[in-house]
Amino acid sequence: MNFPAVLNIIGQVIKYELLLLIIPFLVAVYYGQGDASAFLYTIIIMIPIYIVLTRIKGKSKDIYMKEGFVTVGLAWIAISFFGALPFVFSGTIPSIIDAFFEASSGFTTTGASILTEIQTLPKGILFWRSFTHWVGGMGFLIFILALMPSFNGSTIHLLKAESPGPTPGKIVPKIRQTAKILYAIYFVLTVIQTILLKFAGMSWYDAIIHALGTAGTGGFSNMNASVASFNNPAVEWIITIFMLLFGVNFVLYFQIIRGNIKAFFKSEELKWYLIAVFGSIVIIAINIIPFNGGNIEQSIRDSAFQVASVVTTTGYATADFNLWPTLSKMILVMLMFMGAMAGSTGGGIKTIRIVIIFKAIRREIDKILHPRRVKSVKIDGNVVNEETISGVFLFIFAYIVISLIAIFIISFDNFDVTTTVTSVIATLSNIGPGLELVGPTGNYAAFSDLSKIVLSFCMLAGRLEIYPMLILFSPSLWKKRY
Amino acid sequence: MNFPAVLNIIGQVIKYELLLLIIPFLVAVYYGQGDASAFLYTIIIMIPIYIVLTRIKGKSKDIYMKEGFVTVGLAWIAISFFGALPFVFSGTIPSIIDAFFEASSGFTTTGASILTEIQTLPKGILFWRSFTHWVGGMGFLIFILALMPSFNGSTIHLLKAESPGPTPGKIVPKIRQTAKILYAIYFVLTVIQTILLKFAGMSWYDAIIHALGTAGTGGFSNMNASVASFNNPAVEWIITIFMLLFGVNFVLYFQIIRGNIKAFFKSEELKWYLIAVFGSIVIIAINIIPFNGGNIEQSIRDSAFQVASVVTTTGYATADFNLWPTLSKMILVMLMFMGAMAGSTGGGIKTIRIVIIFKAIRREIDKILHPRRVKSVKIDGNVVNEETISGVFLFIFAYIVISLIAIFIISFDNFDVTTTVTSVIATLSNIGPGLELVGPTGNYAAFSDLSKIVLSFCMLAGRLEIYPMLILFSPSLWKKRY
Repeated sequence: MNFPAVLNIIGQVIKYELLLLIIPFLVAVYYGQGDASAFLYTIIIMIPIYIVLTRIKGKSKDIYMKEGFVTVGLAWIAISFFGALPFVFSGTIPSIIDAFFEASSGFTTTGASILTEIQTLPKGILFWRSFTHWVGGMGFLIFILALMPSFNGSTIHLLKAESPGPTPGKIVPKIRQTAKILYAIYFVLTVIQTILLKFAGMSWYDAIIHALGTAGTGGFSNMNASVASFNNPAVEWIITIFMLLFGVNFVLYFQIIRGNIKAFFKSEELKWYLIAVFGSIVIIAINIIPFNGGNIEQSIRDSAFQVASVVTTTGYATADFNLWPTLSKMILVMLMFMGAMAGSTGGGIKTIRIVIIFKAIRREIDKILHPRRVKSVKIDGNVVNEETISGVFLFIFAYIVISLIAIFIISFDNFDVTTTVTSVIATLSNIGPGLELVGPTGNYAAFSDLSKIVLSFCMLAGRLEIYPMLILFSPSLWKKRY
Repeated sequence: MNFPAVLNIIGQVIKYELLLLIIPFLVAVYYGQGDASAFLYTIIIMIPIYIVLTRIKGKSKDIYMKEGFVTVGLAWIAISFFGALPFVFSGTIPSIIDAFFEASSGFTTTGASILTEIQTLPKGILFWRSFTHWVGGMGFLIFILALMPSFNGSTIHLLKAESPGPTPGKIVPKIRQTAKILYAIYFVLTVIQTILLKFAGMSWYDAIIHALGTAGTGGFSNMNASVASFNNPAVEWIITIFMLLFGVNFVLYFQIIRGNIKAFFKSEELKWYLIAVFGSIVIIAINIIPFNGGNIEQSIRDSAFQVASVVTTTGYATADFNLWPTLSKMILVMLMFMGAMAGSTGGGIKTIRIVIIFKAIRREIDKILHPRRVKSVKIDGNVVNEETISGVFLFIFAYIVISLIAIFIISFDNFDVTTTVTSVIATLSNIGPGLELVGPTGNYAAFSDLSKIVLSFCMLAGRLEIYPMLILFSPSLWKKRY
């Protein structure tokens, strides 16, 4: 293990986080609600740490897959820790464990909160809380890569560990240029959404907060009642559409820009993503009409908003779906597992993996019916190799195993079964709200410190697709040095 | 598809069921509670059907894997249907859908019941209900195989489709002889348990009923309050121990008889089965001491009984675990998924599959840490080939997919989330009781007819390890004929 290189990169990461903290500091100064000093203290603490870490130079600059995963895992813990300090210093979240929960929830774009009172907090703090979604959404290391003139050599191993979903490697060669284009798309979409929200009647501040939360598929709002508090159908529809847009694989947008519109319409993952989304919207809308007293327009709007919010793992709420009929709740729970498309800012297992599993099951049945015809699993007309398929399987099992271990530990808090199970799913899939106590009108304040640490771990594991966090627990990583 | 051969075998299956029905008929005659005629009518209806079916002779006697799976799937539907008729004719369960649910619950050794009042029913009917557990436990076709002098040629495909878990093929060559030995072990254990229960204070009738339910890992009792109604610690301990014994792979007993005691102690599956069982017993016992008012002896006894009952998918109850703390409930739900050992009479995913998955995940992490060292997954020192591993993965995914589809349909009944989810897990894993409405003191009476059909399907799919039932839904099975 090349620890010097790992620590050096983490130093770089801290430096960039430090630079990013200047933005909420300026926001805090502008609004003058007394929270500017919290950002200043944080920056002052971070400066010597980044200087020490970036001075560490080992014999070798090489980093391999192992170092890539460890670096990404530790880097995300570090940014969440330092990102938590402004909450502590401003007194908005006095407990460091709570603050770490909130910050990792922000960076991982989960949007689960331990805050019970939000809208009275200082505006700089609330901006920072939502800004972490935006920064975390596209990947912190990809972000640095797009900005930095020269980054360490073996960046591919860092990106492999950080990027969401099994995406084709086509965009790898011109990796820095691609990262810039992806961030440009991300930035432009965010700006467009902000402007639309402003025109729909929001203040500039509210519009920016909610555009940042939508783009990162995060879900932090600056209002206690989330998007419901604006009581504005136009706002709800804009957010619904942009949530779904940010749930699409950004490589497809990249292809459109390059003029390859065919690739966009040929994507099987997009097809199934849209089928799942619109199928769920229709079923839930019909299912909740009686709940909404026969109001069809509201039922469609609430259903579309909640489906988009859950499938993209954003987590905004306009209705308390915890009160909806069981059918609607179960569909939402299933969408929580599925998540959006690979290469989007969303969390969850990702549509492409579900498609691969269904095709693999179908092949297994075909094997019984026609043992002599051996077929390959194909996506978009290309054969998916067997190693990728078994990688998908193992990813999901690792996902399930982590869920079970987390559920086991959370159970000690002795909340009801549904709260216990959905709190783990909602954090591991980076959604935010679950059902019952952690439902859209609830929050995570009541959990014990141990549970909050476990759920923070789930958020990080979910965002980094399990292995970078899981590997930190491997004894052989820490014991042997070869 | 060789349908004549399929129908012919189903005819044979019906003939043997018909012969088995003579036993509850005699029990009913002995007790003279008016239910004997119900068995007589059933037998009279079955005679012409079996005669017609067994006369069907196609050109070819060959059956392949495809026919094996279809035959097993249809045969189990047929035995459940005819096994349901005595309930209907006796008036104990007037609805055929309810009766089919009860009979498939019996044969699949699930033990889920739609009956709200049990102990006042005629003794012949209650004997039949428990006898279906015993017959279904070891596999109906294996049972026939052990009895019949000459069965169709390609029996291996039937057995492959019916036997529980990925067992090593070592016992295949002398297949009929092996089946006889396995049934002999099964019979002897059942008799020993019956005698012990009698000595512990049960009546002969109660002892037989509960031994049949334990041996098949079924769980039907003739008392409304299940084993709790006897209020007899000795009875509870005997049933606990025998439940665990029937959860062990019968091939291991077979090895002991052949003098290969080493194989018994070398079994990794047995090791993990015992670790899971005793670990769970200890944690739950400690967790429920406050619930039991500080009574340590009762806490250990209740915990051991309930863990054994759930992990072996038997489903007997001595305590309402639905009222236990969340930690205990979650451990029980996890054990529901796991199930007992492959080659036992229990249901569920089976310990061996869980062990294989953990080893495969560990290998995946090792791959990141040491990309150049490629390791095989080993069980009992033997390499598990990659096809078996991916078969295990696909089995579990098929299991999950069927769960999700079933949960979706059951959701229309609009029961709470926990009831909805655990009713599917409890039937698909052939356990019986779940949580909330379907908890140990509840039953399945309240579900709609559609839900009862879906849950019956789940029980059959669970018992036959998914594919024989899933394949019946494959369009290409019914459309093309080649």
